[in-house]
Amino acid sequence: MQLGMIGLGRMGANLVRRMVDGGHECVVYDHNADAVSALTTEPNTTGVSSLAELAAQLSAPRVVWVMVPAGAITTGVIEELAGTLEAGDIVIDGGNSYYRDDIAHAKVLADKGIHLLDCGTSGGVWGRERGYCLMVGGDRAAFDHVEPIFATVAPGVDAAPRTPGREGEIAQAEKGYLYCGPSGAGHFVKMVHNGIEYGMMASIAEGLNILHHANIGKQDQQGDAETAPLSNPEFYRYDIDIEQVTEVWRRGSVIGSWLLDLTASALQKSPQLEEFAGRVSDSGEGRWTVIAAIDEGVPAPVLTTALYARFASRQLFEFGAKVLSAMRKQFGGHDEKSG
Amino acid sequence: MQLGMIGLGRMGANLVRRMVDGGHECVVYDHNADAVSALTTEPNTTGVSSLAELAAQLSAPRVVWVMVPAGAITTGVIEELAGTLEAGDIVIDGGNSYYRDDIAHAKVLADKGIHLLDCGTSGGVWGRERGYCLMVGGDRAAFDHVEPIFATVAPGVDAAPRTPGREGEIAQAEKGYLYCGPSGAGHFVKMVHNGIEYGMMASIAEGLNILHHANIGKQDQQGDAETAPLSNPEFYRYDIDIEQVTEVWRRGSVIGSWLLDLTASALQKSPQLEEFAGRVSDSGEGRWTVIAAIDEGVPAPVLTTALYARFASRQLFEFGAKVLSAMRKQFGGHDEKSG
Amino acid sequence: MQLGMIGLGRMGANLVRRMVDGGHECVVYDHNADAVSALTTEPNTTGVSSLAELAAQLSAPRVVWVMVPAGAITTGVIEELAGTLEAGDIVIDGGNSYYRDDIAHAKVLADKGIHLLDCGTSGGVWGRERGYCLMVGGDRAAFDHVEPIFATVAPGVDAAPRTPGREGEIAQAEKGYLYCGPSGAGHFVKMVHNGIEYGMMASIAEGLNILHHANIGKQDQQGDAETAPLSNPEFYRYDIDIEQVTEVWRRGSVIGSWLLDLTASALQKSPQLEEFAGRVSDSGEGRWTVIAAIDEGVPAPVLTTALYARFASRQLFEFGAKVLSAMRKQFGGHDEKSG
Amino acid sequence: MQLGMIGLGRMGANLVRRMVDGGHECVVYDHNADAVSALTTEPNTTGVSSLAELAAQLSAPRVVWVMVPAGAITTGVIEELAGTLEAGDIVIDGGNSYYRDDIAHAKVLADKGIHLLDCGTSGGVWGRERGYCLMVGGDRAAFDHVEPIFATVAPGVDAAPRTPGREGEIAQAEKGYLYCGPSGAGHFVKMVHNGIEYGMMASIAEGLNILHHANIGKQDQQGDAETAPLSNPEFYRYDIDIEQVTEVWRRGSVIGSWLLDLTASALQKSPQLEEFAGRVSDSGEGRWTVIAAIDEGVPAPVLTTALYARFASRQLFEFGAKVLSAMRKQFGGHDEKSG
Repeated sequence: MQLGMIGLGRMGANLVRRMVDGGHECVVYDHNADAVSALTTEPNTTGVSSLAELAAQLSAPRVVWVMVPAGAITTGVIEELAGTLEAGDIVIDGGNSYYRDDIAHAKVLADKGIHLLDCGTSGGVWGRERGYCLMVGGDRAAFDHVEPIFATVAPGVDAAPRTPGREGEIAQAEKGYLYCGPSGAGHFVKMVHNGIEYGMMASIAEGLNILHHANIGKQDQQGDAETAPLSNPEFYRYDIDIEQVTEVWRRGSVIGSWLLDLTASALQKSPQLEEFAGRVSDSGEGRWTVIAAIDEGVPAPVLTTALYARFASRQLFEFGAKVLSAMRKQFGGHDEKSG
Repeated sequence: MQLGMIGLGRMGANLVRRMVDGGHECVVYDHNADAVSALTTEPNTTGVSSLAELAAQLSAPRVVWVMVPAGAITTGVIEELAGTLEAGDIVIDGGNSYYRDDIAHAKVLADKGIHLLDCGTSGGVWGRERGYCLMVGGDRAAFDHVEPIFATVAPGVDAAPRTPGREGEIAQAEKGYLYCGPSGAGHFVKMVHNGIEYGMMASIAEGLNILHHANIGKQDQQGDAETAPLSNPEFYRYDIDIEQVTEVWRRGSVIGSWLLDLTASALQKSPQLEEFAGRVSDSGEGRWTVIAAIDEGVPAPVLTTALYARFASRQLFEFGAKVLSAMRKQFGGHDEKSG
Repeated sequence: MQLGMIGLGRMGANLVRRMVDGGHECVVYDHNADAVSALTTEPNTTGVSSLAELAAQLSAPRVVWVMVPAGAITTGVIEELAGTLEAGDIVIDGGNSYYRDDIAHAKVLADKGIHLLDCGTSGGVWGRERGYCLMVGGDRAAFDHVEPIFATVAPGVDAAPRTPGREGEIAQAEKGYLYCGPSGAGHFVKMVHNGIEYGMMASIAEGLNILHHANIGKQDQQGDAETAPLSNPEFYRYDIDIEQVTEVWRRGSVIGSWLLDLTASALQKSPQLEEFAGRVSDSGEGRWTVIAAIDEGVPAPVLTTALYARFASRQLFEFGAKVLSAMRKQFGGHDEKSG
Repeated sequence: MQLGMIGLGRMGANLVRRMVDGGHECVVYDHNADAVSALTTEPNTTGVSSLAELAAQLSAPRVVWVMVPAGAITTGVIEELAGTLEAGDIVIDGGNSYYRDDIAHAKVLADKGIHLLDCGTSGGVWGRERGYCLMVGGDRAAFDHVEPIFATVAPGVDAAPRTPGREGEIAQAEKGYLYCGPSGAGHFVKMVHNGIEYGMMASIAEGLNILHHANIGKQDQQGDAETAPLSNPEFYRYDIDIEQVTEVWRRGSVIGSWLLDLTASALQKSPQLEEFAGRVSDSGEGRWTVIAAIDEGVPAPVLTTALYARFASRQLFEFGAKVLSAMRKQFGGHDEKSG
């Protein structure tokens, strides 16, 4: 198929390469002209310098994939496309948009007869090689039209052994992409995916942190009234080689996972991770997942505490912690211990 | 009554003063002779320089209150008393001992016919004036013998309005002390009390921290891919005077409490709490409460996360946070943001 | 002063009584005529049968207190008042409105020159007697005009001992009401107040639940592979009288609080609380507090897990729990144990 | 090598089969004679009817693998082996023992000159086919002697692609087994592994539960004061096919993992999981992991809340929830809603 790509950052550029490898033809645009020229060395890839030109180069019904930062920038592109494309055309938002924005964007485009597909795209920097896991929402007929693109971008059925019990024809999900429902459903599913990701990451991180401190019984125990004594130091005298532990868990254990593979790889490069300060960012989906849980009225304590651990890593509880110390000073005369 | 006090720190000395005020006669000992002489200026207070001398000064059955740091020091005193006192004597451990230690200590003393009462003592630096809330475990007859002491040390019935529905004779608990059950029961109840204290403190601290950040919408929002954007800054443009808020909540609100009174007092002195760094200590009971919940198999997520917030305030998740950053770098190419 | 009250439910009716007691004159309206006639037996209280009539009975600038359910009903009343009142009039929303709605409502009224004060009102069914803690947002001049009403409704300075360090003139907050800032600030502070309330309540509930199970070591321990064994039953053989424990904590302990008083009162009436099933509702503020924490990017794990415990009490994790059991069956062949 | 196996349950029997497949010779014992005879149909497998006979059939230094329930049963077997085996023999505890018990058991055996290796064994019912991930603690020389057995039981290097950056000779961990340190180190690492497992499982379960409720906006919203209203039902109108979602995530997504594979498989068999009630057991390691975190003083909120969700699924917060409802009744006159 023929497809326009808007946004040639790491993700957008790799998507184009994967599409071209799969036999599709791409017209590419970025507000940065250098990004455009860098990519047009690929076969079957044509660069353009405006959305109008992009529209002109594509045959109707046009298919345009938008891969730009979520939020105001995506909204701006959607609004510009509403004025550039024609009824029957299809826009795919492959970024990390909030699914509520998809619903709004879909209305903007629907007023012009243009379809929006929201496409949650997981795979990170590895997707060029492994393929991207795609979760898609929006108009079903539009999805069906674009399906060959999704099939190319996705990892394909061979990326995992077949689930026991599945038989006969290969289902869509088994190819690594899924039509999830009406507008927003794709990014909703992707949002929850990232929420789970936060929880899994925190699970591994907390476990390794416990292993990291498993030799605390070898240290001198402070004996003052401000410190809970370790009553059984003999149980905490292990120097665990955490790099090797993550490696051994990769084979046969219940927690085998891609995140564990990546952790083993990071520790292989840097067993103490000195190059990191431990200030962990979050980019929205974790927050939105928690808000969804709260709106639905269902408990999500694991995903939420995983999110909060990131906030805390950025010292955002500092005032609250001062309040705690101040209360202890008030009722017990406790002074803060120095670090 | 006549009573021996071992340990004349802030708590021990104030207990002696309150007992003497109540008409009791005290024989006092501390390993620091200065602490002894400082206290013997009080009326009806005799200083001694050894446990043997303490025993000699008291008439049988002797009553000895131990108020020394929990753990090894308390154990040492208990063992020494086992060799110094006589069958029928009564030892009260008023410190912050782990209730499991009480069970062991009671056995050591019971071998000599000596009774141990474990006495959880709440009230902090304010107890001299307000009285101490006492939770007592051990032999019931020993408790009954010592009850006049507890009645003096406790706040007394006037410290709170009568609970609606209570009628007739004043119950023990209404006087501010309670026989809770066999050995360890007193410190068990005190342990859970402190667990609740952690949760209440964290509740106030988290709430005030949210108020402290209520003006985040006035700040420039960073627009990069590593930061979840604040989509609705117009909802976070409040400069809340937190000192006044804690003051207003003291009257008529549902969260009125002594901890809130103390928080208001701390903020009155120092509205920004600059003198605190926010490194919050914990002294054992919070940990033991969580371990009790786990042994019992009952959920205690609020008390536990309150405890963990203290650990985190002391940077004890640093390695785990580095693992999180390392994973993000691996799958998404994300670099850590600087602080 | 003269004041109109819209909404004569428990809270509205008690507010009217307290205002009349304080020397104010009330014109009252409810969509239920019986509620109106029931209240007009009070002195200085006039009933009306429509908002138009209410407006006619009040002298300009009119002061109208709205005390109806938050959400659509409040919005409807606000919109009707926008068409009924005049420039310079003042509306007080004393219900549990979301502070974001206040901002919208204030705009609707401001278009007509009418002021909205949002007034978080804490005190529950006890406020008639104890007074209500008031947290107010909106136009400062409007607040100043209405202040005599707030002073009457609030508990007054005698409701709590003065905070140590406060000297000289009595501050507003010491009287039990506080101007918190522009539109929404009052309900924002009230929202966080309720968030703290959830955390404090859960702290007490978790602690008492641990005490309730403190005799688990007396029970036969199930010895199968599906049940974590209790390795130390000797530490869990206490039958704690929880009613008495809550009573003793009321005097001198660090966790003394109004919520503890109420808990003691509830347990006095019903030590086992058999009349409750344990399905705990939530009415919005706890959720909004968590959403505020997330928007601000600050951790609030205690307040959040307190909220989630309520969701879980209503069986809203059932599908998730089934997923857990299904996974255990898959990897370990574990069958679910019956209840 | 020659090896004795004690305990021929599912795990023990499969271990024997895997060892025999790998060329080792097994002498097998179980207190259930049928289990012994069932297994002696395998090649190179000899059944015995007592530990004495087991010892007699093995050449010194004997290697005996114990695969019986953790706790009292394991302790009994260890003690019996201390009286049956000889100095220089090696016992492997491959069950789910608490690492603290290993330390005690190792001392019992060391008094007779016998070595104990504690061997955390992950893999569940799938280990026969996939191999078992092994984490071993104890005497290093004993480990080296037995290593050929571990190499056979483990999944082997081909079970996962090599971690990028690893070069040259294959490390021990890459073969799926690891010497972790002195006595208890193996089960300590296995314990933390299971703690992580709890967190990962809960992450998936919470995420799927959020997807399961994504259609809540289609339901009638209750409009009473006891229910937080869903202010934006238009955002929760998705009927997500959760079986397909778990399938699509298996390919290319960041959360790809064995637990996800198993979840997809369970949902393939039973999309609504009706056969489960959602009462989730826990078998000890999760609890011990949390206790380790607390003893070390490091935060583990995700692993802990995952554990607590299991407790809550078994209705172990019932009394606490009643306390919450009782408080709400007290301060607000709120009645509990029926289910």
